[in-house]
Amino acid sequence: MEQQKNDSGSRAFIRSVIFGTDTSSGRLFDIGLIVCIIASVFLILLDTIVEVHQEYGEVIRILEWGFTVLFTIEYILRLYSSANPLLYARSFYGIVDLLAILPSFLILLFPGAQFALMIRVFRLFRVFRVLKLLRYLSEGNLLLKAMVHSSRKVFIFFFSVSLIIMVLGSIMYVIEGPENGFSSIPKSIYWTIVTITTVGYGDIIPHTALGQGVASLTMLLGYSIIAIPTGILTAEISNEMGRQRDLRRCSNCSTSGHDAQANYCFECGAELQQEI
Amino acid sequence: MEQQKNDSGSRAFIRSVIFGTDTSSGRLFDIGLIVCIIASVFLILLDTIVEVHQEYGEVIRILEWGFTVLFTIEYILRLYSSANPLLYARSFYGIVDLLAILPSFLILLFPGAQFALMIRVFRLFRVFRVLKLLRYLSEGNLLLKAMVHSSRKVFIFFFSVSLIIMVLGSIMYVIEGPENGFSSIPKSIYWTIVTITTVGYGDIIPHTALGQGVASLTMLLGYSIIAIPTGILTAEISNEMGRQRDLRRCSNCSTSGHDAQANYCFECGAELQQEI
Amino acid sequence: MEQQKNDSGSRAFIRSVIFGTDTSSGRLFDIGLIVCIIASVFLILLDTIVEVHQEYGEVIRILEWGFTVLFTIEYILRLYSSANPLLYARSFYGIVDLLAILPSFLILLFPGAQFALMIRVFRLFRVFRVLKLLRYLSEGNLLLKAMVHSSRKVFIFFFSVSLIIMVLGSIMYVIEGPENGFSSIPKSIYWTIVTITTVGYGDIIPHTALGQGVASLTMLLGYSIIAIPTGILTAEISNEMGRQRDLRRCSNCSTSGHDAQANYCFECGAELQQEI
Amino acid sequence: MEQQKNDSGSRAFIRSVIFGTDTSSGRLFDIGLIVCIIASVFLILLDTIVEVHQEYGEVIRILEWGFTVLFTIEYILRLYSSANPLLYARSFYGIVDLLAILPSFLILLFPGAQFALMIRVFRLFRVFRVLKLLRYLSEGNLLLKAMVHSSRKVFIFFFSVSLIIMVLGSIMYVIEGPENGFSSIPKSIYWTIVTITTVGYGDIIPHTALGQGVASLTMLLGYSIIAIPTGILTAEISNEMGRQRDLRRCSNCSTSGHDAQANYCFECGAELQQEI
Repeated sequence: MEQQKNDSGSRAFIRSVIFGTDTSSGRLFDIGLIVCIIASVFLILLDTIVEVHQEYGEVIRILEWGFTVLFTIEYILRLYSSANPLLYARSFYGIVDLLAILPSFLILLFPGAQFALMIRVFRLFRVFRVLKLLRYLSEGNLLLKAMVHSSRKVFIFFFSVSLIIMVLGSIMYVIEGPENGFSSIPKSIYWTIVTITTVGYGDIIPHTALGQGVASLTMLLGYSIIAIPTGILTAEISNEMGRQRDLRRCSNCSTSGHDAQANYCFECGAELQQEI
Repeated sequence: MEQQKNDSGSRAFIRSVIFGTDTSSGRLFDIGLIVCIIASVFLILLDTIVEVHQEYGEVIRILEWGFTVLFTIEYILRLYSSANPLLYARSFYGIVDLLAILPSFLILLFPGAQFALMIRVFRLFRVFRVLKLLRYLSEGNLLLKAMVHSSRKVFIFFFSVSLIIMVLGSIMYVIEGPENGFSSIPKSIYWTIVTITTVGYGDIIPHTALGQGVASLTMLLGYSIIAIPTGILTAEISNEMGRQRDLRRCSNCSTSGHDAQANYCFECGAELQQEI
Repeated sequence: MEQQKNDSGSRAFIRSVIFGTDTSSGRLFDIGLIVCIIASVFLILLDTIVEVHQEYGEVIRILEWGFTVLFTIEYILRLYSSANPLLYARSFYGIVDLLAILPSFLILLFPGAQFALMIRVFRLFRVFRVLKLLRYLSEGNLLLKAMVHSSRKVFIFFFSVSLIIMVLGSIMYVIEGPENGFSSIPKSIYWTIVTITTVGYGDIIPHTALGQGVASLTMLLGYSIIAIPTGILTAEISNEMGRQRDLRRCSNCSTSGHDAQANYCFECGAELQQEI
Repeated sequence: MEQQKNDSGSRAFIRSVIFGTDTSSGRLFDIGLIVCIIASVFLILLDTIVEVHQEYGEVIRILEWGFTVLFTIEYILRLYSSANPLLYARSFYGIVDLLAILPSFLILLFPGAQFALMIRVFRLFRVFRVLKLLRYLSEGNLLLKAMVHSSRKVFIFFFSVSLIIMVLGSIMYVIEGPENGFSSIPKSIYWTIVTITTVGYGDIIPHTALGQGVASLTMLLGYSIIAIPTGILTAEISNEMGRQRDLRRCSNCSTSGHDAQANYCFECGAELQQEI
């Protein structure tokens, strides 16, 4: 019984350090974790540069293993201290945390798997925990909601654009042909995407007059239709911002219409609380 | 008489399968059709890759003919079962359905016509039939309406831009000349389009200091004027969304102003119907 | 007196044909004029293609002179029939009309001046006269007003961007230097413009790690700041559209708030007149 | 005492000339200063062109020193005549003014420091002093406020995009590898930035089919997500413009809602004052 209680006490303490953001120890842990993630990611980046690898490859390998051991311990502690380990393990962060250590062990079986460690960068989303969490959550939510609301319109847009890209790619294949670098329809479609998104590498370019004409139309099309998803998203973000302003009510005088940035009610001066 | 009735019964059944979207057999048919279209398009793409063509050219040719026969039967059945065959034959889908099979037969006369089969991708617009049709129709209509409403402003914009492109192209031809790759005014205009749309292949580039100056202005112009059609479309989409919200009335309490995403009236809770 | 009257009668007739847009003869003249302008511009374009010039150079030269004579006669008739010749001569169209014929005569003195004839494309703005003029004028005015209203903000934006471009160009010159193609600060600034506008020719590219880092920042900067002029213009166009809707009043019941596209008052059904 | 007064009188006069914008002498000084800054910057630019340096290097060096002496005298006079020298020295303009002369002296110790003189271009922000200052300040403030208000959303956007860029870069490194120019993950990330911002130099391009597929997705991603910051900023600028219109009250009849461009109250016709 005593053991149990003590155990639950240490678990609660670990939980408050690992999952908490209010206490100074919780914040310190989060900051330390972010520093470790950045250092670990940085090492993976550096290790791919030939000169660095030849000089410091061994040191990097040892350090990388150190980080992997650290992250493994952290993952086990998270599972152990979590109120609901299964819920954590299945959450976005739980999966990313697991994927961030797995490749280190897989590398023993499959050499080359170490690059999969780059998935560790997604752990950096924890940065928002150190920053004022709720505010960022609400701003991020607004963006997510606007994207979800506009998803159907954006899907129609991208679906239509995809079909147009396929047809334009085929037309260019027929016009230019393999002798001008358009060696197959899939390659032609790749060129169309490069052109319609205005990237324009210049590795494949039209040589015939007709091909340059169709290419010009493709460019002007790509240049102008970007206005459509931009228009959709702007209208939705604008809507969502108006809606959120309506939702924010002062707990004192229940006036709504406050800015997302406002800290005090413009009517009675009472402090406004952040929405979750 | 009996025969007539029976015939009309089988026609009604075929119609419900081919044109219907409510029954499970109608949905299954649509899904099967989409799978066939995708497979057929995929085959055309693959056949243009030299290695694939040499290895599997014969198999692909046979499969492609199989799809053509399937689509031909489908087209005849559509004509046969349609309430108004002529109306169907003249509709967007009717024309696309015909164009999707014609090139296979034309190829017997003109080799090389098989690439025209890529028009089959447009048949994929039927995807929206499988998805909740009405919703997508209404969202697509909103986009179309916004585009129609802004068409006059966008036309003025593109007309002016075209004239500017032609003049800039001529100026660059005079400045750079054939010795720097600007071999004719049409080619110069092609370069101007590549530059003003910010595609920038790099196949033709200005070499003189003056030419690089004019090119810089062209780039900055292209970089900034994209704001104009975007602004036009955003304002129209925003308008159109507000208008559609006003149009959606609850059939129970006739309150308007519901979101396009809302399923229930926010005033009385009655289910809202989708507009067509 | 009789002569005077007769003269003024023929002048009025010429005026109605040349400047008018309501009568069928006026419309026919405008359409014929546009066809001539397009044909003339097309000839100039074609003449710069070496193969065409060698084959048909003489024919094109004669045709071009024919168009010049035609446009000269038209210009003289415009001056003659105009109610206020000086006002016409000084107007945008008057100046373009003059510039559209001058280079043909200058070529006798300075060979090579014929490319200045490309200024003729600006005469194509007359296209809007053939289309329903007033509508296009009002739509074009809206765009112009929005641009004028946002000009101060856009100026601040482009001024700041110019200074940033100059500083970034200098930094890249110091980092990369002449050995990597950044042969002088002006050339470095040219590269910065190519990069910040996301054109990206690829003729000059950073080779050092530091240079690629600064280049990456330049790209991300250029990619994101385009949002600023777009935001300014969108807000202004949106404003302007709301204002124009408020200005449009029904002459019958004086209700305002009609769409720019509306032809009838939504309140009383009376026909709405187009604003000028 | 007399001396003191006289001194303070000359200081006040110098202050009115150097810092003032209302008097004609103040305006003349500002215009002269801007001309000097432009000339000085222009000289630095020209000096980096090899041909110009060889021919006029000596002349440019002398002129540049002349400008440095002029700007040094001006800086000392600003410090001397300023009401609060420390406040000026610490202000944005004070720091830029100092940085604009320092490199000339540093060059005696470190050759090559002269390019740091390009910081002088930032002195050109004084241009707004010559133009109607208050108006531009208010317009610039609107833009700044909109940017500050949207900064949190834009930060979330760029943070997420950065993580995506790093992961995409790593994936492309694994797919394409050093043999196709993706020599390290940092270089792969550089390529991803070049592609996602639609710059597309074409110096590094994917060669494998899988790599071209991932590249296509990267392009389409970059092409579409630009809509997000644009949408955020547009909504904020729109908001801010509405707010500013509400803030502008007529001092006569206290009607609000005037345009930023309006000079007179639309209700009572009284002149409106510019906000600061």
